Amino acid sequence: MENLYVIKIGGNIVDNHALLTECLTAFSKIKGQAILVHGGGKLASSLAAELGVAQTMVEGRRITDAATLKIVTMVYAGYINKNIVAQLQALGLNAMGLSGADANLIKAHQRVHASIDYGYVGDVDGVNVDLVQKLLASNISLVIAPLTHNGEGQLLNTNADTIAQSIATGLSLNFNVHLIYGFEKDGVLLDINDPNSLIQHINRLSYQKLKDDKIIFEGMVPKIDNAFQALDNGVKSVIIGKAEKMNELINGTTGTTITK
Amino acid sequence: MENLYVIKIGGNIVDNHALLTECLTAFSKIKGQAILVHGGGKLASSLAAELGVAQTMVEGRRITDAATLKIVTMVYAGYINKNIVAQLQALGLNAMGLSGADANLIKAHQRVHASIDYGYVGDVDGVNVDLVQKLLASNISLVIAPLTHNGEGQLLNTNADTIAQSIATGLSLNFNVHLIYGFEKDGVLLDINDPNSLIQHINRLSYQKLKDDKIIFEGMVPKIDNAFQALDNGVKSVIIGKAEKMNELINGTTGTTITK
Repeated sequence: MENLYVIKIGGNIVDNHALLTECLTAFSKIKGQAILVHGGGKLASSLAAELGVAQTMVEGRRITDAATLKIVTMVYAGYINKNIVAQLQALGLNAMGLSGADANLIKAHQRVHASIDYGYVGDVDGVNVDLVQKLLASNISLVIAPLTHNGEGQLLNTNADTIAQSIATGLSLNFNVHLIYGFEKDGVLLDINDPNSLIQHINRLSYQKLKDDKIIFEGMVPKIDNAFQALDNGVKSVIIGKAEKMNELINGTTGTTITK
Repeated sequence: MENLYVIKIGGNIVDNHALLTECLTAFSKIKGQAILVHGGGKLASSLAAELGVAQTMVEGRRITDAATLKIVTMVYAGYINKNIVAQLQALGLNAMGLSGADANLIKAHQRVHASIDYGYVGDVDGVNVDLVQKLLASNISLVIAPLTHNGEGQLLNTNADTIAQSIATGLSLNFNVHLIYGFEKDGVLLDINDPNSLIQHINRLSYQKLKDDKIIFEGMVPKIDNAFQALDNGVKSVIIGKAEKMNELINGTTGTTITK
């Protein structure tokens, strides 16, 4: 099977023009199929502040009322998505930007939670694998904004990490899928303050030992748990590292590679 | 050849939720291939006002500085486009929203003008006909936002009428293309104040006579001149009328049909 790289770049990269350009240049050089999922960045928060729309974050998630949904739809699917697409086109890549509503790419339902009303936040139900395959086969590089829809006309603000994972697992029957989480650090570090303490490879056995010995940074645990979930659902490897070193992450010369 | 309806809906429709829903419902009922091009509406102007970005209009065209380009990108390609797509999906149509940058759908160049600096405004160079054909063949209904790109990373604000015409003429070798301009009036009227004075059919001969007799509303002249330009470039008919009566415009029971 052919390789497919599903690459998520976080908000801190989207916010930084030089870093984003470096990332997109690396993305344009990937050999083989690749899909880019971008986060939202701080632009939604700053636009909300300018417009006087109060924002509430619960455990890092944005409570999405109607005014906030409008803002994230404008910023994620409009400004960020289309600027990335235009830049990739200039780099010679035939990029197409989509939200989860477009051609029913990602169906979701509004989050139900016992005590917190997240508002217009989506939990993913499924990915339109057939569409993604067709577009990839036409040499179109997908750039995906973190928005989904419920099929009844409602757009839903949806976590970009989750979208990347859903696409990766959804395509895993058709490709050797490698899920890459690009962020600001070199990867999973033994010592959060020492960039030279990179753990190059983690599997379930070594992860258990790292957890038992309490030498893994707590903030990393949900990310790695998610990674194993992706691996259990058919993804071949999950790679975590510096977004702008995308090509090195792919060839394994930097970052942390997680396998079963 | 198969029929293809390229339908432009103006800003006054996009601004009116009830009218837009009526339009989209009609659009979802069209038998055969159809492409929707939407205008921008007043939302870009009101957002600009809220953000304190001064707007300058010259002959109905928006001078587009960097701050304004950011606003129209957010509003046109984000908010309006994705809400239309989500609504059409709920109506059972497999809609996909694109800007001209996506998959290089519409290439343009920044407008050059002897005396006016329009800023980031695009004049269309060409349409990616191959892409449109492929998507239509996959039963995807395109919803196009009035933005293009120059291939060098620059997004450009572009007139929706022009985009509709470029797509219509671009596809005219492959389809029997009918270009529909949906707006707030019933069509071309003999007397602007009398909705019963609809001219049902115009051809070049009758148009010349209407102009000679000075009984055609001046504001209509550029629209009709554009229509004849489309007809000269392969479009089969241009139909002007009430946007929400889309199905009647197509079957010829309302609106003004312009043919050679």
